[in-house]
Amino acid sequence: MRYLIKFSYDGSKFYGYQKQPKLRTVEGEFENALYSINNKQKTRIYSSGRTDSGVHAIGQCAHFDLNINITEYKIKCALNSLLPNDIHVFFAKKVKADFNSRFNAKEKEYYYLINVGEYNPISRNYIYQYNKKLNIKIMRSAIKYFKGKHDFRAFVSEESKKNNYIRYIKKAKIKTYKDIIKISFVGNGFMKYQIRNMVGTLIRIGNDKLKKDSIKKILSGELDNRTVFTAPSEGLYLKRVKYSRRDLIEKKI
Amino acid sequence: MRYLIKFSYDGSKFYGYQKQPKLRTVEGEFENALYSINNKQKTRIYSSGRTDSGVHAIGQCAHFDLNINITEYKIKCALNSLLPNDIHVFFAKKVKADFNSRFNAKEKEYYYLINVGEYNPISRNYIYQYNKKLNIKIMRSAIKYFKGKHDFRAFVSEESKKNNYIRYIKKAKIKTYKDIIKISFVGNGFMKYQIRNMVGTLIRIGNDKLKKDSIKKILSGELDNRTVFTAPSEGLYLKRVKYSRRDLIEKKI
Repeated sequence: MRYLIKFSYDGSKFYGYQKQPKLRTVEGEFENALYSINNKQKTRIYSSGRTDSGVHAIGQCAHFDLNINITEYKIKCALNSLLPNDIHVFFAKKVKADFNSRFNAKEKEYYYLINVGEYNPISRNYIYQYNKKLNIKIMRSAIKYFKGKHDFRAFVSEESKKNNYIRYIKKAKIKTYKDIIKISFVGNGFMKYQIRNMVGTLIRIGNDKLKKDSIKKILSGELDNRTVFTAPSEGLYLKRVKYSRRDLIEKKI
Repeated sequence: MRYLIKFSYDGSKFYGYQKQPKLRTVEGEFENALYSINNKQKTRIYSSGRTDSGVHAIGQCAHFDLNINITEYKIKCALNSLLPNDIHVFFAKKVKADFNSRFNAKEKEYYYLINVGEYNPISRNYIYQYNKKLNIKIMRSAIKYFKGKHDFRAFVSEESKKNNYIRYIKKAKIKTYKDIIKISFVGNGFMKYQIRNMVGTLIRIGNDKLKKDSIKKILSGELDNRTVFTAPSEGLYLKRVKYSRRDLIEKKI
């Protein structure tokens, strides 16, 4: 039986999502818990995508298969009782045997938080402490260049070579709450460091190091992507993974 | 020369404010930093009051004496460069030689945060994860019994014997932000565990374990204080310490 789960974690407490020998990771914690639930059998978990060390998740999704028949609510309770308190499962849902949390994901939403006020020691692992003023007005007019279908290779780290760098960004917006800036992106998928590089570039526009139309020029290759700055991990949150309703319906047996 | 400082810290990273051998405390970190600043002389720091392990501060205040003459801004910078990143100094201010951060404090403000929504692993050290509904309306009508001048001995831990348990509470209110309840108190001073016991009692009223008028009865001694519950430390914040303007003026030499 295949299950989809939605869960949240405090990224500051893990060496990223992906399992690594001898390091504390979200995937590693899940596989320990699933081993106990699934009759002491090694059970793999497949997420909608990895998050880097320090990046938080509000609504990450993943799937796994169990050999036992157990209710959705009991899976939630069993996982939450076995997992450490920096991970929390919101729900478990039975899905079709061919459902895949990564390949069936239609859309993802991320947001990034920046403190432009004085340094805050209490939120330092949860909001990027930029601690200087930014020109929000100019950032708001620059962010629109990210919207739409683009080749984002200039915003991806060198290491991650891909065949296809084309991604579609549906929404990109900036909100402010007193000294906190929240930059949100909704798109069909994001590559490694893509959002942190997009945010870092917006910061460089907001502090006058880059011009408003730089994003357009970096995307087109007219401007070198060495001007791109990677914003630190602690400000980034995976908010939501969206699936089509059809994919979520459990197969009748 | 005597200096007053205002500072913030992440209580989840310390064994409380007060210095203790071999444990990481806020006071201990300050005394290490002041030792370097004050020409390698042991320098004591005196705060407006202690906070318990896990309790946060947004606007804690303290005073100390230095043998060197150094500008207020340089003290701020020197402290922030020497202190760890879970403490932050907002400002330093020269004050009269008889200024005392504890005895001159006119008023203190604390607030307490409770999450009545689903468990949040990201805020678990910063908001009490109560994770059940509370009757805010009844809590709002009960909190008014704390206002005014009362003998708060029933809301103080057994260990802390005092001569005088009379305190004056000027403001006591409850605000809500989605699933977060914020309970604020302003008063002339609060004793050990007093706020956590007041909040715990409000929670017991909000979940129907105690009646609305229990606070009145506990204060008057009519109801046993074994009904009092101590809310956990992670939800508590020292927001502000207020001094009279007159006390803050630097003595002319």
